[in-house]
Amino acid sequence: MPTPPPCASNARRVDELDTPTVLIDLDRVEANIAAAQAYADQHGLALRPHVKTHKLPVLAHRQLAAGAVGITAQKVGEAMVMAHAGVEDVLLSYPIVGAAKVEPLARLARATTRLAVMLDNRTALEHVVRAAAEAGRAIEVLIEFESGNRRTGVMEPVQARALAQAVDATEGVRLRGLGTHPLGSSAADFVRETRALLAQDGLEATVFSGGGTPRMWHAHESEGLSELRAGTYVYHDRATVGAGAAGLEDCALHVLATVVSAPERDRAVIDAGSKTLTSDRIDPAFGAGFGAVLEYPGALVTSLSEEHGVLDLSTCEGRPRVGERVRILPNHACPVTNLDDHVVAHRGGRIEWIAPVWARGATR
Amino acid sequence: MPTPPPCASNARRVDELDTPTVLIDLDRVEANIAAAQAYADQHGLALRPHVKTHKLPVLAHRQLAAGAVGITAQKVGEAMVMAHAGVEDVLLSYPIVGAAKVEPLARLARATTRLAVMLDNRTALEHVVRAAAEAGRAIEVLIEFESGNRRTGVMEPVQARALAQAVDATEGVRLRGLGTHPLGSSAADFVRETRALLAQDGLEATVFSGGGTPRMWHAHESEGLSELRAGTYVYHDRATVGAGAAGLEDCALHVLATVVSAPERDRAVIDAGSKTLTSDRIDPAFGAGFGAVLEYPGALVTSLSEEHGVLDLSTCEGRPRVGERVRILPNHACPVTNLDDHVVAHRGGRIEWIAPVWARGATR
Repeated sequence: MPTPPPCASNARRVDELDTPTVLIDLDRVEANIAAAQAYADQHGLALRPHVKTHKLPVLAHRQLAAGAVGITAQKVGEAMVMAHAGVEDVLLSYPIVGAAKVEPLARLARATTRLAVMLDNRTALEHVVRAAAEAGRAIEVLIEFESGNRRTGVMEPVQARALAQAVDATEGVRLRGLGTHPLGSSAADFVRETRALLAQDGLEATVFSGGGTPRMWHAHESEGLSELRAGTYVYHDRATVGAGAAGLEDCALHVLATVVSAPERDRAVIDAGSKTLTSDRIDPAFGAGFGAVLEYPGALVTSLSEEHGVLDLSTCEGRPRVGERVRILPNHACPVTNLDDHVVAHRGGRIEWIAPVWARGATR
Repeated sequence: MPTPPPCASNARRVDELDTPTVLIDLDRVEANIAAAQAYADQHGLALRPHVKTHKLPVLAHRQLAAGAVGITAQKVGEAMVMAHAGVEDVLLSYPIVGAAKVEPLARLARATTRLAVMLDNRTALEHVVRAAAEAGRAIEVLIEFESGNRRTGVMEPVQARALAQAVDATEGVRLRGLGTHPLGSSAADFVRETRALLAQDGLEATVFSGGGTPRMWHAHESEGLSELRAGTYVYHDRATVGAGAAGLEDCALHVLATVVSAPERDRAVIDAGSKTLTSDRIDPAFGAGFGAVLEYPGALVTSLSEEHGVLDLSTCEGRPRVGERVRILPNHACPVTNLDDHVVAHRGGRIEWIAPVWARGATR
């Protein structure tokens, strides 16, 4: 495993670090990568991890070394960081739209060996075609379809067929297949129907790509799925634990925080607020608030401002004292790694490396 | 106004920029700075703007040039960016707690002409005292008290008195006064009672510092207030408009986004998600969702994932087409400037400068 460039801290143990700080437990990361790859191998699925969770080339290379076929990224900038770090096979699972994105997408095509874009509309297709022409390289296309997220994705198989025909009729792009997120129960039927329609045109959607961590261990139940995209599994979080995809002992990312105030018996304040934990909530069935406190299981991060996390201790046995450090399991790991410039990788509290989060903030 | 160092974009108008991008309207910023200073001057209040909103030395210097007495920051790192950019008078409105923070706080004390820390407990005081000793410089202290936020702050005047006595008895620190956020209706009484107690000890809390943008124009109604701390007023946002502190025409920060998908008649998706707008919500009385769409007043950003913003167009007259650009007024400006590495300052769409957000991510 290549070691990222050092940051200016000579701390040897996480106990010595200033807070708040994002910690990742390398033993757990390695176990999570191995478990996901073993599952994919067992079920004959290609694994294409989403790098949005870690944003670190060092972990993308770990996933590839374990057997992943390539990576998934959302935006061109995020993928470009990976391409420059030697990742050759990239799927952008996002409709790249905008004249200002054509040249960056062309650069990405030139920087990778194999590039595909998932899209659901003709404007995105036009921009991908222009980028392919600009790059002098073919770009593959997956047609995105709706399967329960009500976000992006065509709603009907006939729409997927029309887009596939447009791809087939256009120079510079090639149809790779169909893609969806989060791989809802309607996905297999949609793919079957669309494949039947495409067969009438002599077209083939070879790849059926879908998934996400919350239901990743059920991906093989989705008939016809060939490629599993999941990202959060590398760290896990309160949401994926709540969804049953992991146990607390699998969670590899925590925020180390310090108790900075305790104005009342049942209230303490930590130095990690929404600028560290984000304001992301989770399904109330999975838990309340903005994070769980490892050292005080009865405590809850009930409210956040930018730099304050307020702990409700009313159902908690112990009481952390001011100055004490606690580890917080966040609701959602991915946006947490988007906030701090660095993450600290450790094994059992001993720091192995401190790395810049290269693909942090890459929203374009 | 000094011009920040350029970023590698030769765009001359915001129309040419890639999206999502954070735009700030300099004409409005200047008007907001002037209006706040005029209000403070009119009521004999010192204005100490919170830099957490803009995180830009260039705007801190603008605020100081207009008449601000110094700046407010939350964390040492944020303040250090400002000190290195020539800001000399800093108040940290946050209890600095942690052995790892002593040396950075000492460095900040050496880098500033005047430094104060607001705190509500003895552990924070101990760490401030150690930093002052390390720096060989006095650090001033404001005792933070509760006035409606239930976050940090002592609950009772007797607690404030005890802390003030501890400050008075300790080498290297000096009592400047009392501070609170958000300056609730109980604040004036708390200060009156505490000042009476302190008088018994021959102590004086010269400064009473408080405030925040939502009720900033009512700050003069808080008896005894001497210093107004507010930050968001420099940009304003949906929350401060909702609170009645500004009109939509005063809002200076918007996110420029592109419509990347429109899968159904009443649903469109923009390329700004929680990694750009944050998941911060506002008081439901002020509005629903995660942002307002300037060009389509009936539209609402109803749900976000990291890179997707889903627009509900069901009560909207027009329908943006895929590829169209829209401007989003976010719920909360401050965390938005914490996400992108750059902001684009313009006048009427013409770019004046593109600046790195120097104090972005400075949570330590």
